Amino acid sequence: MNKKPVNGMRDIMPDEMRLRAYVLGVIRETYRDFGFTEIETPCVESIENLSGKQGGENEKLTFKIMKRGEKLDIEHAEKEMDLVDSGLRYDLTVPLSRFYANHQADLPKPFKALQIGPVWRAERPQKGRFRQFYQCDIDIFGDPSNLAETELILAMCTVLTKIGFKDLVIRINDRRILKAMAVYSGLPEESWEEVFIALDKLDKIGEDGVSAELLSLGMTEDAVAKYMAMFRTAEGEHGADAVSRIADTLGDALDPKVTENMRQIFTLVESAKDVPFELAFDPTLVRGMGYYTGPIFEIAVPEFGSSVGGGGRYDEMVGRFAGQPTPACGFSIGFERIITILLEHGFMIPGTKEKTALLMEKGLSLEKTADVLKLAAKLRAEGKQVLTASMIKNRKFQKEQLQAEGYTDIRDFYENPIER
Amino acid sequence: MNKKPVNGMRDIMPDEMRLRAYVLGVIRETYRDFGFTEIETPCVESIENLSGKQGGENEKLTFKIMKRGEKLDIEHAEKEMDLVDSGLRYDLTVPLSRFYANHQADLPKPFKALQIGPVWRAERPQKGRFRQFYQCDIDIFGDPSNLAETELILAMCTVLTKIGFKDLVIRINDRRILKAMAVYSGLPEESWEEVFIALDKLDKIGEDGVSAELLSLGMTEDAVAKYMAMFRTAEGEHGADAVSRIADTLGDALDPKVTENMRQIFTLVESAKDVPFELAFDPTLVRGMGYYTGPIFEIAVPEFGSSVGGGGRYDEMVGRFAGQPTPACGFSIGFERIITILLEHGFMIPGTKEKTALLMEKGLSLEKTADVLKLAAKLRAEGKQVLTASMIKNRKFQKEQLQAEGYTDIRDFYENPIER
Repeated sequence: MNKKPVNGMRDIMPDEMRLRAYVLGVIRETYRDFGFTEIETPCVESIENLSGKQGGENEKLTFKIMKRGEKLDIEHAEKEMDLVDSGLRYDLTVPLSRFYANHQADLPKPFKALQIGPVWRAERPQKGRFRQFYQCDIDIFGDPSNLAETELILAMCTVLTKIGFKDLVIRINDRRILKAMAVYSGLPEESWEEVFIALDKLDKIGEDGVSAELLSLGMTEDAVAKYMAMFRTAEGEHGADAVSRIADTLGDALDPKVTENMRQIFTLVESAKDVPFELAFDPTLVRGMGYYTGPIFEIAVPEFGSSVGGGGRYDEMVGRFAGQPTPACGFSIGFERIITILLEHGFMIPGTKEKTALLMEKGLSLEKTADVLKLAAKLRAEGKQVLTASMIKNRKFQKEQLQAEGYTDIRDFYENPIER
Repeated sequence: MNKKPVNGMRDIMPDEMRLRAYVLGVIRETYRDFGFTEIETPCVESIENLSGKQGGENEKLTFKIMKRGEKLDIEHAEKEMDLVDSGLRYDLTVPLSRFYANHQADLPKPFKALQIGPVWRAERPQKGRFRQFYQCDIDIFGDPSNLAETELILAMCTVLTKIGFKDLVIRINDRRILKAMAVYSGLPEESWEEVFIALDKLDKIGEDGVSAELLSLGMTEDAVAKYMAMFRTAEGEHGADAVSRIADTLGDALDPKVTENMRQIFTLVESAKDVPFELAFDPTLVRGMGYYTGPIFEIAVPEFGSSVGGGGRYDEMVGRFAGQPTPACGFSIGFERIITILLEHGFMIPGTKEKTALLMEKGLSLEKTADVLKLAAKLRAEGKQVLTASMIKNRKFQKEQLQAEGYTDIRDFYENPIER
């Protein structure tokens, strides 16, 4: 028997679980107040759905599940796909699209979904990244208007503010702007995905690094110079005006509806927001998933460096399940990242109940034991969290552990208290 | 792409999710008040741990996960075990025992654990039973005394009462009484597991049915008569006196400590309980899992027929991971069964917030849209749950759906309300 968790996964200890439960509570309640309804899909999806090219690189990381019974024919199996029929989901977006296609007749329209649950990716294990982790997504199906983007931004910023984060920055771009910039610069369409992957590294390798990488991909010097110059066009500005300036440069390469849509999102978000955050246009924002079709966003807490969530519009995915296209837009919170930040900064869970421990000597009479249990019930009725437990031999160790767990009131019960 | 969930699993719709979230909230808060701390283990366990004979029949139902990368050698694989390295857990008890063995130095002693999460069993799909379902377990590790059993009974009955169940009945027996009865009757030890499986069907096939099955297993008529007579000894009584009467009959076949332990549990539970329920001795109670070593229990709500939970003491399992034996006792709520009962009986979730829907005409001006979003924020601050959404063409359908979802206040916003 193996007492370690499987490679790349981990056990979660009580302290962290308390924090997770608290944060999940805030997320659930806040999103519910915004009219999102929670749904759940199985952790297991059929293998077709996990290998249909929706998930890009993630599909290669799928944990696959063996066929069972008569369907499993090891002798004649030639390749992996002969042996498997399903796998663990690598994200919540593919299952949600399947869910919506399956149940849309019974769902409100537009449908505002909240999903929280584990996903699995067989990545090479590394510090702080695990093969099972929670995702926490909100999605709006059936609303083609930018009310969807606006609401997702407002709801997500409200959640993060309630959790305790400050100075939130939402960077926003649009896949169609990304593409128009590539068109305008004369970068050939077949290389766009590679170009965007290079651009995505701007933070890490700088402008020169990106230029060098684009050249090494075989782009012409002219095209690269024209492309990189464009990002400077909007430098220093991050609002709707920056969008307009880029749009002016792009001219016919960009549909004016895209510019107007982005301007409207800025207007709506700025006038309706009731928690503080900054919405910033960032023409260098790429986001990995190929399924995005319109606005894309990423949310960061500058104090903690990295992104804590992101999302975008993906109007085509549901159609692959449902047959008919359905507008869809979603936002995912980096739940594990948030928990890590809160743990590292010693976050205190607000409004925790007073914790009392009632410890009983070994061999305490039935009568006195019953009295202690009755006392525990009484204290619980008064709103306290009450642990009753047998004393162990190492009483000092037991008390220290209870104090570390937050028990401020620890009481001992002996058969003959006076003798002690 | 396949829009159905995988065979034997299911999607959970918003209405049921609301109920599940409510019930899980009651469970979490109540168990926390009793000093249980929540932990979590990965859904995936190494294949050794899932095939070590802890899980009896459940091990045959394990969903197995394929090896990946270089470790996967289909060409030379001869049997299933050559191809897999892990699987989905079939219960929460095996992972918890592994968890405790792995982390006991960092855990309080005794350790009171709460675990909630999905488990998987590849059973033949049938009505009302699914291949992914939630378990909800409390366990106490490191307490050999019957304080553990007492606390589990009190905590579990408090949870079920808070959820709204009445007239709870806890049936209790002890594995050692079961065995002593078999010894006393002269049933050979190698046939005990089969005997207990037959006895477990008493409810369904009656006394005559059980007798017939025992005879067909090759037991002698004398032994069967003696065995069956014993269950009549305690008929009509269900308290500690029934235990004593059986013990008197069994004489030397039963360790008097077992009787005394059972009597103490009755005394402690009866004097400390502060929610109504009945504790009843039932010498016919078997419970399937072979790992139980002492008291076993099952909890039923007679109004709804079936068992809604059960558990027992299993002092030997942790030792298989940790090397040294650790007393352990646990209780599992039949979470899916409870949800089914509540759904069938139209359970209303108490204290639900007032729900308001603000519906906006397509093409509503930015200014008016922003006003609606601001109104939504204001109503949320007042404690309401507020949905904002675009109107769809079929407005009647949209409103009916919202009403079905519990929206009592539905407001429409048009650009020119007067014209309408």
